[in-house]
Amino acid sequence: MTTLQLVNQIKQKKSFLCIGLDVDLTKIPQHLLELEDPIFEFNKAIIDNTHDLCVSYKPNIAFYEAYGLKGWQSLKKTINYLNEKHPEIFTIADAKRGDIGNTSTMYAKAFLEDLNFDSITVAPYMGKDSVEPFLAFENKFAILLALTSNEGAFDFQTKKSPETSEVEELYKTVIKTSKTWKNSQNLMYVVGATKAEYFTEIRKIVPNSFLLVPGVGVQGGSLQEVCKYGMNESIGLLINSSRAIIYASNGKDFAEMARNEALKIQQQMEIILNTD
Amino acid sequence: MTTLQLVNQIKQKKSFLCIGLDVDLTKIPQHLLELEDPIFEFNKAIIDNTHDLCVSYKPNIAFYEAYGLKGWQSLKKTINYLNEKHPEIFTIADAKRGDIGNTSTMYAKAFLEDLNFDSITVAPYMGKDSVEPFLAFENKFAILLALTSNEGAFDFQTKKSPETSEVEELYKTVIKTSKTWKNSQNLMYVVGATKAEYFTEIRKIVPNSFLLVPGVGVQGGSLQEVCKYGMNESIGLLINSSRAIIYASNGKDFAEMARNEALKIQQQMEIILNTD
Repeated sequence: MTTLQLVNQIKQKKSFLCIGLDVDLTKIPQHLLELEDPIFEFNKAIIDNTHDLCVSYKPNIAFYEAYGLKGWQSLKKTINYLNEKHPEIFTIADAKRGDIGNTSTMYAKAFLEDLNFDSITVAPYMGKDSVEPFLAFENKFAILLALTSNEGAFDFQTKKSPETSEVEELYKTVIKTSKTWKNSQNLMYVVGATKAEYFTEIRKIVPNSFLLVPGVGVQGGSLQEVCKYGMNESIGLLINSSRAIIYASNGKDFAEMARNEALKIQQQMEIILNTD
Repeated sequence: MTTLQLVNQIKQKKSFLCIGLDVDLTKIPQHLLELEDPIFEFNKAIIDNTHDLCVSYKPNIAFYEAYGLKGWQSLKKTINYLNEKHPEIFTIADAKRGDIGNTSTMYAKAFLEDLNFDSITVAPYMGKDSVEPFLAFENKFAILLALTSNEGAFDFQTKKSPETSEVEELYKTVIKTSKTWKNSQNLMYVVGATKAEYFTEIRKIVPNSFLLVPGVGVQGGSLQEVCKYGMNESIGLLINSSRAIIYASNGKDFAEMARNEALKIQQQMEIILNTD
Protein backbone atom coordinates (compact mmCIF):
# COMPACT_ATOMS: atom_id res chain seq x y z
CA MET A 1 0.00 0.00 0.00
CA THR A 2 1.23 3.53 -0.74
CA THR A 3 1.05 6.38 1.75
CA LEU A 4 -1.30 8.15 -0.64
CA GLN A 5 -3.71 5.21 -0.58
CA LEU A 6 -3.64 5.28 3.22
CA VAL A 7 -4.32 9.03 3.30
CA ASN A 8 -7.19 8.64 0.84
CA GLN A 9 -8.71 5.91 2.96
CA ILE A 10 -8.47 8.17 6.02
CA LYS A 11 -10.27 10.99 4.20
CA GLN A 12 -12.96 8.68 2.87
CA LYS A 13 -13.70 6.94 6.17
CA LYS A 14 -13.09 10.11 8.23
CA SER A 15 -11.07 7.96 10.57
CA PHE A 16 -7.43 7.35 11.39
CA LEU A 17 -8.21 4.58 13.85
CA CYS A 18 -6.11 1.43 14.07
CA ILE A 19 -7.64 -1.48 15.96
CA GLY A 20 -5.24 -3.73 17.84
CA LEU A 21 -6.08 -7.42 17.61
CA ASP A 22 -4.53 -8.59 20.90
CA VAL A 23 -6.57 -11.74 21.26
CA ASP A 24 -6.40 -13.41 24.66
CA LEU A 25 -8.45 -16.61 24.98
CA THR A 26 -9.18 -15.83 28.63
CA LYS A 27 -10.82 -12.53 27.69
CA ILE A 28 -12.90 -13.36 24.64
CA PRO A 29 -16.54 -14.48 24.91
CA GLN A 30 -16.58 -18.02 26.21
CA HIS A 31 -19.08 -19.28 23.63
CA LEU A 32 -16.38 -18.82 20.96
CA LEU A 33 -14.16 -21.39 22.63
CA GLU A 34 -16.41 -24.17 21.29
CA LEU A 35 -15.50 -23.25 17.71
CA GLU A 36 -12.56 -24.79 15.87
CA ASP A 37 -10.52 -21.57 15.67
CA PRO A 38 -11.78 -19.19 18.39
CA ILE A 39 -9.07 -16.58 17.75
CA PHE A 40 -9.87 -16.28 14.06
CA GLU A 41 -13.63 -16.30 14.68
CA PHE A 42 -13.20 -13.51 17.21
CA ASN A 43 -11.07 -11.45 14.79
CA LYS A 44 -13.46 -12.08 11.90
CA ALA A 45 -16.42 -10.82 13.94
CA ILE A 46 -14.48 -7.74 15.07
CA ILE A 47 -13.35 -7.01 11.50
CA ASP A 48 -16.82 -7.56 10.00
CA ASN A 49 -18.26 -5.09 12.48
CA THR A 50 -15.62 -2.34 12.46
CA HIS A 51 -13.86 -2.27 9.04
CA ASP A 52 -15.77 0.82 7.88
CA LEU A 53 -14.75 2.75 11.03
CA CYS A 54 -11.00 2.13 11.00
CA VAL A 55 -8.20 2.23 8.44
CA SER A 56 -5.85 -0.28 10.01
CA TYR A 57 -5.68 -3.50 12.04
CA LYS A 58 -2.70 -4.42 14.14
CA PRO A 59 -2.41 -8.02 15.35
CA ASN A 60 -0.01 -8.19 18.28
CA ILE A 61 2.16 -11.13 17.30
CA ALA A 62 2.97 -12.16 20.89
CA PHE A 63 -0.65 -13.12 21.48
CA TYR A 64 -0.52 -15.52 18.52
CA GLU A 65 2.91 -16.97 19.30
CA ALA A 66 1.69 -17.69 22.80
CA TYR A 67 -0.62 -20.32 21.29
CA GLY A 68 2.12 -21.95 19.24
CA LEU A 69 1.16 -23.64 15.99
CA LYS A 70 -2.54 -22.92 16.49
CA GLY A 71 -1.78 -19.28 17.08
CA TRP A 72 0.19 -19.02 13.85
CA GLN A 73 -2.66 -20.64 11.99
CA SER A 74 -5.10 -18.09 13.43
CA LEU A 75 -2.75 -15.25 12.50
CA LYS A 76 -2.41 -16.52 8.95
CA LYS A 77 -6.17 -16.87 8.55
CA THR A 78 -6.69 -13.37 9.97
CA ILE A 79 -4.22 -11.64 7.64
CA ASN A 80 -5.51 -13.65 4.65
CA TYR A 81 -9.08 -12.64 5.51
CA LEU A 82 -8.05 -8.98 5.73
CA ASN A 83 -6.10 -9.07 2.46
CA GLU A 84 -8.92 -10.80 0.58
CA LYS A 85 -11.97 -9.02 1.98
CA HIS A 86 -10.52 -5.61 2.79
CA PRO A 87 -7.42 -4.94 0.68
CA GLU A 88 -7.79 -1.21 1.37
CA ILE A 89 -6.99 -1.75 5.06
CA PHE A 90 -3.43 -0.99 6.23
CA THR A 91 -2.18 -4.05 8.14
CA ILE A 92 0.48 -3.90 10.84
CA ALA A 93 2.34 -6.89 12.28
CA ASP A 94 3.10 -5.64 15.78
CA ALA A 95 6.18 -7.79 16.21
CA LYS A 96 8.88 -5.36 17.42
CA ARG A 97 11.60 -7.36 15.68
CA GLY A 98 15.21 -6.34 15.04
CA ASP A 99 18.38 -8.41 14.74
CA ILE A 100 21.60 -8.56 12.72
CA GLY A 101 21.15 -8.12 8.96
CA ASN A 102 20.62 -11.66 7.72
CA THR A 103 18.24 -12.38 10.60
CA SER A 104 16.22 -9.20 10.08
CA THR A 105 15.93 -10.23 6.44
CA MET A 106 14.31 -13.50 7.54
CA TYR A 107 11.82 -11.66 9.76
CA ALA A 108 11.07 -9.16 7.00
CA LYS A 109 10.31 -11.93 4.50
CA ALA A 110 8.17 -13.79 7.01
CA PHE A 111 5.93 -10.83 7.79
CA LEU A 112 6.03 -8.60 4.70
CA GLU A 113 6.22 -11.28 1.99
CA ASP A 114 4.87 -14.59 3.23
CA LEU A 115 2.18 -13.29 5.55
CA ASN A 116 1.89 -10.20 3.33
CA PHE A 117 1.42 -7.53 5.98
CA ASP A 118 1.74 -3.90 4.82
CA SER A 119 4.06 -3.11 7.72
CA ILE A 120 5.85 -4.37 10.81
CA THR A 121 6.95 -2.69 14.03
CA VAL A 122 10.73 -2.76 14.53
CA ALA A 123 13.06 -2.09 17.52
CA PRO A 124 15.99 0.30 16.93
CA TYR A 125 18.57 -0.81 19.52
CA MET A 126 20.77 -2.72 17.05
CA GLY A 127 20.90 0.19 14.58
CA LYS A 128 21.04 0.61 10.83
CA ASP A 129 21.79 -2.88 9.53
CA SER A 130 19.10 -4.35 11.80
CA VAL A 131 16.39 -2.08 10.34
CA GLU A 132 17.31 -1.61 6.67
CA PRO A 133 16.25 -5.14 5.66
CA PHE A 134 12.68 -4.17 6.62
CA LEU A 135 12.86 -1.10 4.34
CA ALA A 136 13.72 -3.01 1.18
CA PHE A 137 10.13 -3.76 0.14
CA GLU A 138 8.28 -1.38 -2.15
CA ASN A 139 5.12 0.06 -0.64
CA LYS A 140 5.74 -1.74 2.65
CA PHE A 141 6.71 0.00 5.88
CA ALA A 142 8.81 -0.51 8.97
CA ILE A 143 7.33 1.25 11.99
CA LEU A 144 10.29 2.05 14.22
CA LEU A 145 9.93 2.27 18.00
CA ALA A 146 10.80 5.86 18.88
CA LEU A 147 9.00 6.87 22.06
CA THR A 148 6.79 4.16 23.49
CA SER A 149 3.83 4.65 25.82
CA ASN A 150 4.93 2.41 28.68
CA GLU A 151 6.58 3.37 31.97
CA GLY A 152 9.90 1.87 30.88
CA ALA A 153 10.07 4.37 28.00
CA PHE A 154 11.74 6.73 30.45
CA ASP A 155 14.52 4.26 31.28
CA PHE A 156 16.48 4.82 28.06
CA GLN A 157 14.44 6.54 25.34
CA THR A 158 14.40 9.94 27.05
CA LYS A 159 18.03 9.79 28.22
CA LYS A 160 20.01 12.68 26.83
CA SER A 161 23.15 12.37 24.70
CA PRO A 162 25.70 15.10 23.97
CA GLU A 163 27.04 13.42 20.84
CA THR A 164 25.02 15.35 18.31
CA SER A 165 25.20 19.12 17.78
CA GLU A 166 22.87 19.71 20.72
CA VAL A 167 22.24 17.50 23.72
CA GLU A 168 19.19 15.46 22.87
CA GLU A 169 17.12 12.53 24.04
CA LEU A 170 17.81 9.06 22.65
CA TYR A 171 14.44 8.86 20.87
CA LYS A 172 15.35 11.97 18.87
CA THR A 173 18.75 10.54 17.97
CA VAL A 174 16.95 7.38 16.85
CA ILE A 175 14.55 9.27 14.59
CA LYS A 176 17.23 11.59 13.17
CA THR A 177 19.65 8.74 12.50
CA SER A 178 16.96 6.58 10.91
CA LYS A 179 16.36 9.29 8.30
CA THR A 180 19.85 8.61 6.91
CA TRP A 181 19.13 4.92 6.31
CA LYS A 182 18.50 3.43 2.88
CA ASN A 183 14.84 3.62 1.80
CA SER A 184 13.98 5.72 4.84
CA GLN A 185 10.87 6.86 2.98
CA ASN A 186 9.47 3.49 4.08
CA LEU A 187 9.74 4.40 7.77
CA MET A 188 6.93 5.26 10.14
CA TYR A 189 7.40 5.70 13.91
CA VAL A 190 5.77 4.47 17.11
CA VAL A 191 5.13 7.46 19.37
CA GLY A 192 3.15 6.96 22.55
CA ALA A 193 0.41 9.37 23.51
CA THR A 194 1.54 9.74 27.10
CA LYS A 195 2.98 13.22 26.69
CA ALA A 196 1.46 15.12 23.78
CA GLU A 197 4.12 17.85 23.85
CA TYR A 198 6.69 15.35 22.60
CA PHE A 199 4.86 15.41 19.26
CA THR A 200 5.93 19.01 18.66
CA GLU A 201 9.57 17.98 18.94
CA ILE A 202 9.09 14.91 16.78
CA ARG A 203 7.26 16.84 14.06
CA LYS A 204 10.31 19.12 13.77
CA ILE A 205 12.37 16.06 12.81
CA VAL A 206 9.85 14.12 10.73
CA PRO A 207 7.15 16.54 9.57
CA ASN A 208 5.84 14.18 6.91
CA SER A 209 6.09 10.69 8.40
CA PHE A 210 3.18 8.68 9.67
CA LEU A 211 3.18 8.08 13.43
CA LEU A 212 1.54 5.05 15.02
CA VAL A 213 0.20 6.18 18.38
CA PRO A 214 -0.63 3.75 21.19
CA GLY A 215 -1.72 4.88 24.61
CA VAL A 216 -4.80 6.95 23.80
CA GLY A 217 -7.67 6.06 26.11
CA VAL A 218 -6.78 3.17 28.44
CA GLN A 219 -3.24 4.44 29.01
CA GLY A 220 -4.44 8.01 29.56
CA GLY A 221 -3.43 9.95 26.45
CA SER A 222 -5.86 12.47 24.96
CA LEU A 223 -6.89 12.21 21.30
CA GLN A 224 -7.37 15.97 21.01
CA GLU A 225 -3.94 16.75 22.43
CA VAL A 226 -2.18 14.20 20.22
CA CYS A 227 -3.90 15.62 17.12
CA LYS A 228 -3.14 19.20 18.14
CA TYR A 229 0.60 18.56 18.29
CA GLY A 230 1.04 15.55 16.02
CA MET A 231 -1.20 15.94 12.98
CA ASN A 232 0.27 17.12 9.69
CA GLU A 233 -1.20 18.07 6.32
CA SER A 234 -1.73 14.43 5.35
CA ILE A 235 -3.10 13.65 8.84
CA GLY A 236 0.05 11.57 9.49
CA LEU A 237 -1.38 9.74 12.49
CA LEU A 238 -2.70 6.25 13.14
CA ILE A 239 -4.24 6.11 16.58
CA ASN A 240 -4.32 2.63 18.02
CA SER A 241 -6.89 1.26 20.40
CA SER A 242 -6.93 -2.40 21.35
CA ARG A 243 -8.54 -3.54 24.57
CA ALA A 244 -11.05 -0.67 24.90
CA ILE A 245 -12.60 -1.78 21.61
CA ILE A 246 -12.19 -5.53 21.31
CA TYR A 247 -13.03 -6.27 24.94
CA ALA A 248 -15.90 -3.78 25.26
CA SER A 249 -18.07 -6.77 26.12
CA ASN A 250 -17.35 -10.44 26.64
CA GLY A 251 -20.92 -11.52 26.00
CA LYS A 252 -22.61 -12.57 22.78
CA ASP A 253 -22.90 -8.88 21.88
CA PHE A 254 -19.09 -8.41 21.85
CA ALA A 255 -18.83 -7.47 18.16
CA GLU A 256 -21.69 -5.01 18.37
CA MET A 257 -20.22 -3.41 21.49
CA ALA A 258 -16.80 -3.26 19.84
CA ARG A 259 -18.47 -1.41 16.95
CA ASN A 260 -20.02 1.05 19.41
CA GLU A 261 -16.63 1.81 20.94
CA ALA A 262 -14.95 2.15 17.55
CA LEU A 263 -17.78 4.42 16.40
CA LYS A 264 -17.27 6.73 19.40
CA ILE A 265 -13.62 7.18 18.49
CA GLN A 266 -14.35 7.53 14.76
CA GLN A 267 -16.89 10.26 15.53
CA GLN A 268 -14.34 12.17 17.59
CA MET A 269 -11.90 11.81 14.71
CA GLU A 270 -14.48 13.06 12.21
CA ILE A 271 -14.97 16.21 14.29
CA ILE A 272 -11.22 16.78 14.41
CA LEU A 273 -10.85 16.20 10.66
CA ASN A 274 -13.71 18.58 9.91
CA THR A 275 -12.37 21.37 12.11
CA ASP A 276 -8.85 21.13 10.75
CA MET B 1 18.57 -24.75 34.85
CA THR B 2 20.59 -23.03 37.58
CA THR B 3 23.77 -21.05 36.92
CA LEU B 4 25.64 -23.61 39.02
CA GLN B 5 24.47 -26.44 36.77
CA LEU B 6 25.65 -24.47 33.75
CA VAL B 7 29.05 -23.83 35.33
CA ASN B 8 29.42 -27.51 36.26
CA GLN B 9 28.60 -28.54 32.72
CA ILE B 10 31.27 -26.15 31.42
CA LYS B 11 33.87 -27.62 33.74
CA GLN B 12 32.92 -31.17 32.86
CA LYS B 13 32.91 -30.68 29.09
CA LYS B 14 35.80 -28.19 29.15
CA SER B 15 33.77 -26.06 26.82
CA PHE B 16 31.72 -22.88 26.95
CA LEU B 17 30.63 -23.14 23.36
CA CYS B 18 27.10 -22.30 22.26
CA ILE B 19 26.07 -23.51 18.80
CA GLY B 20 23.62 -21.31 16.92
CA LEU B 21 20.98 -23.24 15.02
CA ASP B 22 20.26 -20.72 12.23
CA VAL B 23 18.84 -23.17 9.76
CA ASP B 24 18.45 -21.85 6.22
CA LEU B 25 16.96 -24.34 3.74
CA THR B 26 19.08 -22.88 0.94
CA LYS B 27 22.28 -23.67 2.83
CA ILE B 28 21.71 -27.13 4.26
CA PRO B 29 22.69 -30.30 2.37
CA GLN B 30 20.22 -30.76 -0.44
CA HIS B 31 19.64 -34.47 0.25
CA LEU B 32 17.87 -33.46 3.47
CA LEU B 33 15.19 -31.62 1.52
CA GLU B 34 13.64 -34.95 0.54
CA LEU B 35 12.85 -35.72 4.18
CA GLU B 36 9.56 -34.72 5.82
CA ASP B 37 11.10 -32.16 8.20
CA PRO B 38 14.50 -31.12 6.80
CA ILE B 39 15.08 -28.43 9.44
CA PHE B 40 14.58 -30.82 12.33
CA GLU B 41 16.61 -33.58 10.66
CA PHE B 42 19.45 -31.10 10.13
CA ASN B 43 19.31 -29.93 13.76
CA LYS B 44 19.10 -33.50 15.06
CA ALA B 45 22.22 -34.51 13.13
CA ILE B 46 24.11 -31.42 14.34
CA ILE B 47 23.04 -32.05 17.95
CA ASP B 48 23.85 -35.79 17.81
CA ASN B 49 27.35 -34.96 16.58
CA THR B 50 28.23 -31.98 18.78
CA HIS B 51 26.38 -32.22 22.13
CA ASP B 52 29.47 -33.39 24.01
CA LEU B 53 31.51 -30.43 22.73
CA CYS B 54 29.14 -27.58 23.59
CA VAL B 55 27.05 -26.54 26.58
CA SER B 56 24.33 -24.63 24.80
CA TYR B 57 22.25 -24.47 21.60
CA LYS B 58 20.66 -21.29 20.35
CA PRO B 59 17.99 -21.57 17.67
CA ASN B 60 17.57 -18.20 15.96
CA ILE B 61 13.80 -17.85 15.95
CA ALA B 62 13.66 -15.74 12.77
CA PHE B 63 14.85 -18.68 10.72
CA TYR B 64 11.93 -20.78 11.97
CA GLU B 65 9.29 -18.05 11.68
CA ALA B 66 10.39 -17.53 8.09
CA TYR B 67 8.94 -20.97 7.30
CA GLY B 68 5.62 -20.24 9.01
CA LEU B 69 3.73 -23.16 10.52
CA LYS B 70 6.28 -25.71 9.34
CA GLY B 71 9.07 -23.67 10.88
CA TRP B 72 7.30 -23.59 14.24
CA GLN B 73 6.83 -27.32 14.08
CA SER B 74 10.56 -27.80 13.41
CA LEU B 75 11.42 -25.48 16.31
CA LYS B 76 9.12 -27.36 18.67
CA LYS B 77 10.58 -30.72 17.65
CA THR B 78 14.11 -29.36 18.08
CA ILE B 79 13.58 -27.99 21.59
CA ASN B 80 11.66 -31.12 22.63
CA TYR B 81 14.51 -33.28 21.33
CA LEU B 82 17.03 -31.22 23.28
CA ASN B 83 14.99 -31.27 26.49
CA GLU B 84 14.41 -35.03 26.29
CA LYS B 85 17.78 -36.28 25.10
CA HIS B 86 20.10 -33.64 26.58
CA PRO B 87 18.44 -31.96 29.58
CA GLU B 88 21.87 -30.77 30.77
CA ILE B 89 22.18 -28.45 27.73
CA PHE B 90 21.38 -24.75 28.26
CA THR B 91 18.87 -23.73 25.58
CA ILE B 92 18.51 -20.18 24.28
CA ALA B 93 15.60 -18.89 22.20
CA ASP B 94 17.32 -16.16 20.21
CA ALA B 95 14.19 -14.11 19.73
CA LYS B 96 15.20 -10.57 20.79
CA ARG B 97 11.70 -9.82 22.05
CA GLY B 98 10.54 -6.88 24.18
CA ASP B 99 7.19 -5.10 24.38
CA ILE B 100 4.85 -3.53 26.94
CA GLY B 101 4.27 -5.60 30.07
CA ASN B 102 1.28 -7.75 29.15
CA THR B 103 2.76 -8.49 25.73
CA SER B 104 6.18 -9.41 27.10
CA THR B 105 4.37 -11.76 29.47
CA MET B 106 2.85 -13.53 26.46
CA TYR B 107 6.26 -13.89 24.80
CA ALA B 108 7.82 -15.11 28.05
CA LYS B 109 5.18 -17.81 28.46
CA ALA B 110 5.51 -18.88 24.84
CA PHE B 111 9.26 -19.40 24.99
CA LEU B 112 10.06 -20.16 28.64
CA GLU B 113 6.95 -22.17 29.57
CA ASP B 114 5.31 -23.68 26.51
CA LEU B 115 8.43 -24.32 24.42
CA ASN B 116 10.38 -24.72 27.69
CA PHE B 117 13.61 -22.95 26.70
CA ASP B 118 16.03 -22.14 29.54
CA SER B 119 16.43 -18.59 28.31
CA ILE B 120 15.46 -15.98 25.72
CA THR B 121 17.27 -12.97 24.27
CA VAL B 122 15.49 -9.67 25.00
CA ALA B 123 15.80 -6.11 23.61
CA PRO B 124 16.12 -3.28 26.18
CA TYR B 125 14.73 -0.24 24.32
CA MET B 126 11.34 -0.26 26.04
CA GLY B 127 12.86 -0.50 29.53
CA LYS B 128 11.98 -2.10 32.84
CA ASP B 129 8.39 -3.21 32.39
CA SER B 130 9.23 -4.72 29.00
CA VAL B 131 11.96 -6.95 30.46
CA GLU B 132 10.76 -7.87 33.97
CA PRO B 133 8.10 -10.33 32.71
CA PHE B 134 10.96 -12.45 31.32
CA LEU B 135 12.65 -12.49 34.75
CA ALA B 136 9.70 -13.94 36.64
CA PHE B 137 10.54 -17.61 36.01
CA GLU B 138 12.68 -19.50 38.49
CA ASN B 139 15.90 -20.89 36.99
CA LYS B 140 15.13 -19.31 33.61
CA PHE B 141 17.07 -16.39 32.15
CA ALA B 142 16.56 -13.29 30.03
CA ILE B 143 19.66 -12.47 28.00
CA LEU B 144 19.53 -8.71 27.49
CA LEU B 145 21.06 -7.05 24.42
CA ALA B 146 23.80 -4.81 25.76
CA LEU B 147 26.48 -4.39 23.11
CA THR B 148 25.82 -6.32 19.93
CA SER B 149 28.41 -7.41 17.37
CA ASN B 150 26.92 -5.80 14.27
CA GLU B 151 27.88 -2.53 12.59
CA GLY B 152 24.68 -0.82 13.76
CA ALA B 153 25.75 -1.35 17.39
CA PHE B 154 27.60 1.95 17.08
CA ASP B 155 24.45 3.85 16.04
CA PHE B 156 22.98 4.03 19.53
CA GLN B 157 24.55 1.55 21.96
CA THR B 158 27.84 3.42 22.25
CA LYS B 159 26.26 6.89 22.35
CA LYS B 160 27.21 8.72 25.52
CA SER B 161 24.75 10.13 28.04
CA PRO B 162 25.46 12.71 30.77
CA GLU B 163 22.48 11.70 32.91
CA THR B 164 24.29 9.40 35.27
CA SER B 165 27.10 10.42 37.62
CA GLU B 166 29.63 10.18 34.84
CA VAL B 167 29.08 10.47 31.10
CA GLU B 168 28.67 6.93 29.84
CA GLU B 169 27.66 4.93 26.81
CA LEU B 170 24.08 3.72 26.43
CA TYR B 171 25.06 0.04 26.76
CA LYS B 172 26.50 0.76 30.19
CA THR B 173 23.38 2.62 31.26
CA VAL B 174 21.36 -0.36 30.04
CA ILE B 175 23.39 -2.84 32.08
CA LYS B 176 23.50 -0.65 35.21
CA THR B 177 19.79 0.10 35.08
CA SER B 178 18.88 -3.54 34.48
CA LYS B 179 20.57 -4.48 37.76
CA THR B 180 17.86 -2.55 39.62
CA TRP B 181 15.04 -4.56 38.06
CA LYS B 182 13.10 -7.24 39.91
CA ASN B 183 14.74 -10.69 39.77
CA SER B 184 17.81 -9.23 38.07
CA GLN B 185 19.69 -12.34 39.19
CA ASN B 186 17.98 -13.96 36.19
CA LEU B 187 19.72 -11.64 33.73
CA MET B 188 22.54 -12.47 31.36
CA TYR B 189 23.83 -10.10 28.66
CA VAL B 190 24.61 -10.21 24.94
CA VAL B 191 28.06 -8.69 24.41
CA GLY B 192 29.61 -8.88 20.95
CA ALA B 193 33.24 -9.88 20.53
CA THR B 194 34.07 -7.05 18.14
CA LYS B 195 36.06 -5.04 20.66
CA ALA B 196 37.45 -7.12 23.49
CA GLU B 197 38.39 -4.09 25.60
CA TYR B 198 34.69 -3.39 26.18
CA PHE B 199 34.61 -6.52 28.34
CA THR B 200 36.82 -4.83 30.96
CA GLU B 201 34.27 -2.05 31.34
CA ILE B 202 31.36 -4.45 31.41
CA ARG B 203 32.97 -6.69 34.03
CA LYS B 204 33.22 -3.66 36.33
CA ILE B 205 29.42 -3.39 36.22
CA VAL B 206 28.47 -7.08 36.17
CA PRO B 207 31.41 -9.12 37.47
CA ASN B 208 29.31 -12.22 38.06
CA SER B 209 26.83 -12.34 35.21
CA PHE B 210 27.04 -14.71 32.28
CA LEU B 211 27.70 -13.01 28.93
CA LEU B 212 26.55 -14.50 25.64
CA VAL B 213 29.16 -13.57 23.05
CA PRO B 214 28.47 -13.61 19.31
CA GLY B 215 31.00 -12.44 16.75
CA VAL B 216 33.94 -14.71 17.50
CA GLY B 217 35.35 -16.18 14.28
CA VAL B 218 33.27 -15.20 11.25
CA GLN B 219 32.72 -11.65 12.51
CA GLY B 220 36.39 -11.27 13.45
CA GLY B 221 36.52 -11.37 17.27
CA SER B 222 39.30 -13.30 18.97
CA LEU B 223 38.47 -16.02 21.49
CA GLN B 224 41.67 -15.42 23.46
CA GLU B 225 41.04 -11.67 23.74
CA VAL B 226 37.43 -12.13 24.81
CA CYS B 227 38.46 -14.62 27.50
CA LYS B 228 41.31 -12.41 28.69
CA TYR B 229 38.97 -9.49 29.39
CA GLY B 230 35.62 -11.19 29.87
CA MET B 231 36.12 -14.38 31.84
CA ASN B 232 35.33 -14.45 35.56
CA GLU B 233 35.78 -17.03 38.32
CA SER B 234 32.81 -19.05 37.13
CA ILE B 235 33.90 -18.69 33.50
CA GLY B 236 30.88 -16.43 32.89
CA LEU B 237 31.02 -16.68 29.11
CA LEU B 238 29.04 -18.49 26.46
CA ILE B 239 30.75 -18.09 23.11
CA ASN B 240 28.40 -18.51 20.19
CA SER B 241 29.29 -19.84 16.79
CA SER B 242 26.64 -20.54 14.18
CA ARG B 243 27.50 -20.60 10.50
CA ALA B 244 31.17 -21.60 10.89
CA ILE B 245 30.03 -24.82 12.54
CA ILE B 246 26.68 -25.79 11.07
CA TYR B 247 27.61 -24.91 7.47
CA ALA B 248 31.16 -26.32 7.60
CA SER B 249 30.07 -28.57 4.73
CA ASN B 250 26.89 -28.86 2.72
CA GLY B 251 27.58 -32.40 1.60
CA LYS B 252 26.57 -35.68 3.19
CA ASP B 253 29.44 -35.24 5.65
CA PHE B 254 27.92 -32.02 7.09
CA ALA B 255 27.41 -33.35 10.63
CA GLU B 256 30.91 -34.82 10.79
CA MET B 257 32.44 -31.58 9.50
CA ALA B 258 30.37 -29.59 11.98
CA ARG B 259 31.79 -31.79 14.72
CA ASN B 260 35.32 -31.08 13.47
CA GLU B 261 34.73 -27.32 13.65
CA ALA B 262 33.13 -27.54 17.08
CA LEU B 263 36.02 -29.71 18.26
CA LYS B 264 38.58 -27.10 17.13
CA ILE B 265 36.84 -24.44 19.21
CA GLN B 266 36.36 -26.77 22.19
CA GLN B 267 40.06 -27.61 22.15
CA GLN B 268 40.99 -23.92 22.21
CA MET B 269 38.60 -23.49 25.11
CA GLU B 270 40.12 -26.44 26.97
CA ILE B 271 43.56 -24.83 26.70
CA ILE B 272 42.20 -21.55 28.02
CA LEU B 273 40.40 -23.29 30.90
CA ASN B 274 43.51 -25.26 31.83
CA THR B 275 45.79 -22.21 31.85
CA ASP B 276 43.46 -20.09 33.95
